[in-house]
Amino acid sequence: MEVRAAVAVGAGKPLEVTTVRLEGPRAFEVLVEIKATGICHTDEFTLSGADPEGLFPAILGHEGAGVVVEVGPGVTTLKPGDHVIPLYTPECRTCEYCLNPKTNLCQSIRATQGQGLMPDGSSRFSTLDGEPILHYMGTSTFSNYTVVPEIALAKIRPDAPFDKVCYIGCGVTTGIGAVINTAKVEIGSRAIVFGLGGIGLNVLQGLRLAGADQIVGVDLNPEKKEMAERFGMTDFVNPSEVDGDLVPYLVNLTKGGADYTFDATGNVNVMRTALESAHKGWGESIIIGVAPAGAEISTRPFQLVTGRVWKGTAFGGARGRTDVPKIVDWYMDGKIEIDPMITHTMPLEDINKGFDLMHSGESIRSVVVY
Amino acid sequence: MEVRAAVAVGAGKPLEVTTVRLEGPRAFEVLVEIKATGICHTDEFTLSGADPEGLFPAILGHEGAGVVVEVGPGVTTLKPGDHVIPLYTPECRTCEYCLNPKTNLCQSIRATQGQGLMPDGSSRFSTLDGEPILHYMGTSTFSNYTVVPEIALAKIRPDAPFDKVCYIGCGVTTGIGAVINTAKVEIGSRAIVFGLGGIGLNVLQGLRLAGADQIVGVDLNPEKKEMAERFGMTDFVNPSEVDGDLVPYLVNLTKGGADYTFDATGNVNVMRTALESAHKGWGESIIIGVAPAGAEISTRPFQLVTGRVWKGTAFGGARGRTDVPKIVDWYMDGKIEIDPMITHTMPLEDINKGFDLMHSGESIRSVVVY
Repeated sequence: MEVRAAVAVGAGKPLEVTTVRLEGPRAFEVLVEIKATGICHTDEFTLSGADPEGLFPAILGHEGAGVVVEVGPGVTTLKPGDHVIPLYTPECRTCEYCLNPKTNLCQSIRATQGQGLMPDGSSRFSTLDGEPILHYMGTSTFSNYTVVPEIALAKIRPDAPFDKVCYIGCGVTTGIGAVINTAKVEIGSRAIVFGLGGIGLNVLQGLRLAGADQIVGVDLNPEKKEMAERFGMTDFVNPSEVDGDLVPYLVNLTKGGADYTFDATGNVNVMRTALESAHKGWGESIIIGVAPAGAEISTRPFQLVTGRVWKGTAFGGARGRTDVPKIVDWYMDGKIEIDPMITHTMPLEDINKGFDLMHSGESIRSVVVY
Repeated sequence: MEVRAAVAVGAGKPLEVTTVRLEGPRAFEVLVEIKATGICHTDEFTLSGADPEGLFPAILGHEGAGVVVEVGPGVTTLKPGDHVIPLYTPECRTCEYCLNPKTNLCQSIRATQGQGLMPDGSSRFSTLDGEPILHYMGTSTFSNYTVVPEIALAKIRPDAPFDKVCYIGCGVTTGIGAVINTAKVEIGSRAIVFGLGGIGLNVLQGLRLAGADQIVGVDLNPEKKEMAERFGMTDFVNPSEVDGDLVPYLVNLTKGGADYTFDATGNVNVMRTALESAHKGWGESIIIGVAPAGAEISTRPFQLVTGRVWKGTAFGGARGRTDVPKIVDWYMDGKIEIDPMITHTMPLEDINKGFDLMHSGESIRSVVVY
């Protein structure tokens, strides 16, 4: 079939919105009509050429929501008409990783996904001339139809609005999950969140949901304060307004250091500050942000020997097929907010404007509505 | 009273075995006759001058065992004749740290202990001329009598041999505790231990006690192999005999990376190797070794984002008054071994020979028997 997609033709080039060919689902695959998709920094990371594993031409996008149109042979858990969110971290429920309760990093289709291919090693996308176009993160939601492995689709309730819950496909789950699944924050905790963009705001509301007592937000942009307070921030710190070193300032503000700190910036220097602002004896620091290729974190080992713990999280430690439907329910029940973070919507034709809004810092999240 | 002590008179100088003056216990303090003391790398670290917080003149030693001689006013949990192990990490059971189950780092007397003083801010030791001599780590076991705060003494069973269980005052507890308290290793785990000295051997036997399936030991000295096997090592790796990078070799040996890795070297490059040899998704790496002043650990944050956890441990995460008597029981019940690790004993007059044996690598542990 012919579908409309935004094709990433090369590093640093704008997406080209065009008609491409999509083959139907093979065994254990599902054809999904994408109804909405967020534009995430990870798409930008790859499109810019900064991602050393980025491949072109490809159809980016990994934060979508849509409806099942057709299922391939062997698919048993989904049927046409089901509402779904594609998962860039699948959940096969049979691999060594899925069977270990300590991780969410299902590895069953990792190798082919990293190559921009379906699990059988081929692509379903091609140009009208028949030249293959690669998938991206197993999802390729910058197309109004896409093919996704069954194990990479979370079935969600049919009354959830696509243009909001698509954000649960990445940012919402990453931020809230970092708090709930990775850090396992307890009621009454003190926490610091570095970076108050889309991920940081979701960390804030995860902390509020978990019952944290003090939720400190750190950002160089004072305009982030108002929205952050709406999502649960209790204290705002602008490092440019702090005299001297930020670490002792934050340690003092949190009465000895935070129980949990979160880096949502991707800056390795901030990651160090986040670790060292955690409380001696038990503070845990969680890295969420993706650092530039080759960048390294460092600290004195004494920071760890005296009880701090350094962790990271991917997709918020969530097991997508199990956890994403729950987070959709939380949104529908009003336990979490998404609407204020969707600052811009646009048709696929204007997708490059969404990237421009990200660069200028005007948007929290832009969503393409098909 | 006049006591016999080995005094550290300055950085890099041999200890001077001499008679010094010891004042009796003040409120909440206890006079202990030390019967035996181990000589630990941490004593050497301070004596060498490498410890930026080292102070002189002082009476070193922190791995002792002895008998209570006299208790000061207010002491309620100990009486003359009780057998005890001094604790450089006290357990007051009332401070914010003691009341948090996530840490063992009691802070109640931290400030004065770090200054080489008793909690009231003074020293009990002095020269025969009346010049003060500092305490060390709150224990100063390189003296045949010492004064220790009540909260820094673990009461142990009276039938345990001083010249063996003194080692529980530091090395044994640090190694076994890193496995049991900090890592909380599960039955069937795969583990790697870097550095097969006194601490490393105790990590090995901690892993055996915890039911680990694979216990890999890594050391550049092939002579460490035989003793390490006695303490539970299942696989020996000499990095000098591995072609290429050590990390992929160890990942392959442990079928994807170890569930737990332990650094018992103090070398920050080894600490990185230890982290990166841990299993993607869930591997935890525990830093035990003390690094040189100013040295830093580093890695790519991707190592943490993909599920590895970086931790450290001090005194094996043990709460001394609670845990040390249990470990003494394990030794007396034959659950753990200590005797083969005590390779040398000597009188106090020969204590500098103990440091020589440590430097030459001939000893695992030297013990001074008074």
